[in-house]
Amino acid sequence: MTPIRTYISENEPRFLEEWASLIRIPSISALPEHKADMTRCAERWRELLLEAGADRAEVMPSAGNPLVYGEKIVNPEAKTVLIYAHYDVMPAEPLDLWQSDPFEPEIRDGRLYARGADDDKGQAMIQVKAFEYLVRHDLLTHNVKFIFEGEEEIGSPSLSGFLAEHKALLRSDVIPVSDTSMLSADLPSLTTGLRGLAYWEVEVTGPCRDLHSGHFGGAVANPANVLCELLAQVVDADGRIAIPGFYDDVEDLSQAERDMIHAIPFDEARYKQAIDVDELRGEAGYNTIERNACRPSFDICGMWSGYTGEGAKTVLPSKAYAKVSCRLVPHQQHEKISQLFVDYITSIAPKCVRVKVTPLHGGEGYVCPISLPAYKAAEAGFTEAFGKRPLAVRRGGSIPIISDFERVLGVKTILMGFGLEANAIHSPNESFSLDIFRRGIEAVVGFHRHYA
Amino acid sequence: MTPIRTYISENEPRFLEEWASLIRIPSISALPEHKADMTRCAERWRELLLEAGADRAEVMPSAGNPLVYGEKIVNPEAKTVLIYAHYDVMPAEPLDLWQSDPFEPEIRDGRLYARGADDDKGQAMIQVKAFEYLVRHDLLTHNVKFIFEGEEEIGSPSLSGFLAEHKALLRSDVIPVSDTSMLSADLPSLTTGLRGLAYWEVEVTGPCRDLHSGHFGGAVANPANVLCELLAQVVDADGRIAIPGFYDDVEDLSQAERDMIHAIPFDEARYKQAIDVDELRGEAGYNTIERNACRPSFDICGMWSGYTGEGAKTVLPSKAYAKVSCRLVPHQQHEKISQLFVDYITSIAPKCVRVKVTPLHGGEGYVCPISLPAYKAAEAGFTEAFGKRPLAVRRGGSIPIISDFERVLGVKTILMGFGLEANAIHSPNESFSLDIFRRGIEAVVGFHRHYA
Repeated sequence: MTPIRTYISENEPRFLEEWASLIRIPSISALPEHKADMTRCAERWRELLLEAGADRAEVMPSAGNPLVYGEKIVNPEAKTVLIYAHYDVMPAEPLDLWQSDPFEPEIRDGRLYARGADDDKGQAMIQVKAFEYLVRHDLLTHNVKFIFEGEEEIGSPSLSGFLAEHKALLRSDVIPVSDTSMLSADLPSLTTGLRGLAYWEVEVTGPCRDLHSGHFGGAVANPANVLCELLAQVVDADGRIAIPGFYDDVEDLSQAERDMIHAIPFDEARYKQAIDVDELRGEAGYNTIERNACRPSFDICGMWSGYTGEGAKTVLPSKAYAKVSCRLVPHQQHEKISQLFVDYITSIAPKCVRVKVTPLHGGEGYVCPISLPAYKAAEAGFTEAFGKRPLAVRRGGSIPIISDFERVLGVKTILMGFGLEANAIHSPNESFSLDIFRRGIEAVVGFHRHYA
Repeated sequence: MTPIRTYISENEPRFLEEWASLIRIPSISALPEHKADMTRCAERWRELLLEAGADRAEVMPSAGNPLVYGEKIVNPEAKTVLIYAHYDVMPAEPLDLWQSDPFEPEIRDGRLYARGADDDKGQAMIQVKAFEYLVRHDLLTHNVKFIFEGEEEIGSPSLSGFLAEHKALLRSDVIPVSDTSMLSADLPSLTTGLRGLAYWEVEVTGPCRDLHSGHFGGAVANPANVLCELLAQVVDADGRIAIPGFYDDVEDLSQAERDMIHAIPFDEARYKQAIDVDELRGEAGYNTIERNACRPSFDICGMWSGYTGEGAKTVLPSKAYAKVSCRLVPHQQHEKISQLFVDYITSIAPKCVRVKVTPLHGGEGYVCPISLPAYKAAEAGFTEAFGKRPLAVRRGGSIPIISDFERVLGVKTILMGFGLEANAIHSPNESFSLDIFRRGIEAVVGFHRHYA
């Protein structure tokens, strides 16, 4: 066993207990009733950063939820690595689909199950435990800073203001972020591109009260019928988004990039089986990896109207709602897309209802050059830990703040995520493999050593 | 004051207390947790029928909720009137829109507010109190029977079986039903036609779990997107239902009937104002009264999918659901329409999702000939109580069991309803005017006297 593997093995019970102590705090940023949990979770991280070897750690206020800052300065002349993570998690609903309490971790078959097991408490633990190893073995030759925020899952509304206010404190040379996933356990990868996001709530109002569908049905527009009509007009039969101007800033993929994507081993049968669908569907002319990483998309994330209880209630509802989002690709500006969607829905809405479209949040996409020394260091660390060179791939998720790091701090990000599709982030039974957890710590230790 | 008006005035406090005792029992047939309330409500009606003058009253079992039977046989050779009503009510949701407790009646400005104030506890009370007056004043010269069921709001699944089993007990010459509404307080009317109903639940299944919309969006069909696409294809741009074969059995309205309908005073501006919509919408070529009473319609009664909490959760949901219904017109058979809808949705569903369409219930429409002696008796009663001759109109609601009465018992129904649109049945703040309550009792007394 290498020293790092021995260290992980000897300390794993403590690592798991620390990880569990974070998970037990339901730091759900989307739900106001969890406000106090946000501060509790930030405080817990502050303690853990100090215990891991930070010289200094504190919970700092922002316009929204507090942030945790920590640092270990070994040499003011040396390079500085700023590790970003988030301590907030998604809501756990639907609760009835969880096999164990989402906020009480349970280990089954070598996996830890809980909300935040992966996203992002588990991945952040990997970074912190790698740091701890380096500090305790006196191997750290550059400075390390930490900034953990509590609003990533709601679009990081306070982060860019915080970055602007604390530029000096956050001065650094590179920002590693472990909040993305790899192609598979057998295909380690580093993420070199992300999609942007725009998110809206659509509210359709028909009559001022729920009506008897027998007395009014056929004569009064039903807002749920209209909502379906409107949303069915967003994507055309070829899977292209029908909003005028939507593709104006989308760069066509180069043939070289498409060749690289087509070279990624992809087992469509296994992909379909993993999510139990008979057929895939997406934009005509692109394959699955292009569709879910390099091309924009439109999804209804939630929808509700009228009677949703048991049995058959005959009602013509007064209101119908949907939460909808677009994943965007680099060069699409989320504010511009946000307005295009508002204009489009407003333009196609019939006058028999009132339609209100509210943008809820958004962020830009990102592309990371693979020539960066920090990228090469990460590549070397992954190679040591996983036994093969990681592929450079673009992914479909969004971390809107990555472009803020570049814009506000002038620092590039390395997306060294250890997630896997099977981890079911944002879903019931989110989990994380303990084997990947161990290899992740090793890969991050490797990153630091090669970066130095 | 006439004797009947004096009687009502003197006994009104007791009538209201009895009415309230029914409302306080939340007899919601759609929700299984109210099972015990169904029996309690049936028992309460049994007591009230006996107190009103029935010789005999009992709660009788059925395949579903129990029924209440009562009778007063004055002369075995005389004609028999069988009064049908229902003691079940709709769910009260959305509860936050009620100005007072839906199950604790409150009187404001001469109206009683509660779930069931009109539909059908209030209207049933009118029938029972008219009966009480006739019994106590020894004016009843024909027999009266009562049959009150507890499953009307869920489509009366057990009633036709009960009718078939108790044909002799229910032998009668006419069935008055007070469960419909009048054109307005100034335009008393009797309902001579009803629409039928077919009701389905549509379940669209995409991936086997909620997915991260960033990692999968664009490559995997979203069941909520697909549900909208499917439901948007049910009604075409002219407001006609696009299901093949749907109109096959729909008889075109005769010019004479259309002339009669166009002669009904209808204030479109007031109608729109009452429900607060800027424009009406319906099938091209028909006016509002035709659309909501004589033509079929398609409404989404409820719809749900994905994340419906606060904030912005980015998820590609696993499931999307809708509860949908068609109002049908006489000659359309609900079983046939039910199957046509299942076939149509199945035929247009893409293979990237699984679609399940479950018929929940249905019933046929009904037309009542205005030449019936019982119709003429009702017309005379209404004329005395409201000071003008009631109009004969077709209405858009459905009482599926009316056609069962004719089919199983061979008896015609007279729809002598006292509701008004403003009563907001099936909606928050359902109410009933006390003035109409009093006139209703007088009209029913008149019906019995003229029918004799």
